[in-house]
Amino acid sequence: MKFYDCKTAPSPRRVRIFLAEKGVEIDSVQVDLAKGEQFSDAFMKISPLAEVPLLVLDDGTVLSQVNAICRYLEEVFPENPLCGRTPVERAQVDAFNGLLQMNGFMAGAEAFRNATPGFKNRAMPGPHNYSQIPELAERGLLRLDNLFADLDAHFADNQFFMGDYYSMADISGLTIVDFAKWVKKFIPENCVHLQRWYDQVNDRPSAKA
Amino acid sequence: MKFYDCKTAPSPRRVRIFLAEKGVEIDSVQVDLAKGEQFSDAFMKISPLAEVPLLVLDDGTVLSQVNAICRYLEEVFPENPLCGRTPVERAQVDAFNGLLQMNGFMAGAEAFRNATPGFKNRAMPGPHNYSQIPELAERGLLRLDNLFADLDAHFADNQFFMGDYYSMADISGLTIVDFAKWVKKFIPENCVHLQRWYDQVNDRPSAKA
Repeated sequence: MKFYDCKTAPSPRRVRIFLAEKGVEIDSVQVDLAKGEQFSDAFMKISPLAEVPLLVLDDGTVLSQVNAICRYLEEVFPENPLCGRTPVERAQVDAFNGLLQMNGFMAGAEAFRNATPGFKNRAMPGPHNYSQIPELAERGLLRLDNLFADLDAHFADNQFFMGDYYSMADISGLTIVDFAKWVKKFIPENCVHLQRWYDQVNDRPSAKA
Repeated sequence: MKFYDCKTAPSPRRVRIFLAEKGVEIDSVQVDLAKGEQFSDAFMKISPLAEVPLLVLDDGTVLSQVNAICRYLEEVFPENPLCGRTPVERAQVDAFNGLLQMNGFMAGAEAFRNATPGFKNRAMPGPHNYSQIPELAERGLLRLDNLFADLDAHFADNQFFMGDYYSMADISGLTIVDFAKWVKKFIPENCVHLQRWYDQVNDRPSAKA
């Protein structure tokens, strides 16, 4: 297996933390998104969507998308389950990941890509070019405010996303809070429960991945 | 189990088609989104996010989000697998679903919610209000054009999303093509492969669900 990574990007970091929590090491290749390496002919042969992370299996099969890659890794390395321990938990982790994808990563990406000069025609990831929409950058920031408030309420009664069970949802959440810093959004002072959760997951050795 | 449904909405339809393909029947409750029933106190006690579909288990556990619900149903009713038959296939179906969620459902929702007078402050689903952004409606239409072209290229070489295996990704895709009609986007005449695929999946009895 080979893992196509980008050390500076939030999505591949989720896979790195996942692997660190599993204690699994996989050969990796760095793709420099800042230099546009994802659009090179060589890379787009592997990934027509020009995206990282990717997991390329020994038979050449290419797996894309964070949640799909981690789902596969969970099946291949079932010890220390991070995607849920029962059918119900697996659905709940999946649901948190879906919400965090929409209300966290997409919100952060809206705020970042629609307001950063270097992304002038690159307001969305992927192979198609889209113009920036300044109002969408503003809405992205507002959505992050709402997410932080919603998460604070959740963590008032829960140690982690899934009660006392650390899961993939915590990995997604941690990565979003750190990604939000790119657009100068930090956990508000009054969100003490969210801050407590963040400190806890950020203190795990995997967070350095 | 009880399934909270809305006959007119695209997301719950994915679960209905999934159940029809499985040949499984579950008691359902209709939530009238057009009348705002999702914001009633009774419903928001079940779903603080004011969303359908929901699956409520016999012990009261509430499962939300289409992909998570179907993932659970697949584990409970494993016959006729729709989410993949191997770890690799499960990751691939998951990846298609993730892409279709972002580039199909979100694109359609952007186009629809940002241009429909009745959604004035409801440009996004969920409990928070967001103003409409007319440019985002335009971008949503453009994204659907790009999706149709991308899918047409895919179906030039593939009977279904997953080669000759009908899966949850086909259910997602079918529902998106029908949802796109809400914003007057139809499969372009030159997308003959996409049209061939659509006719095939739309002819299955489950499509009427």
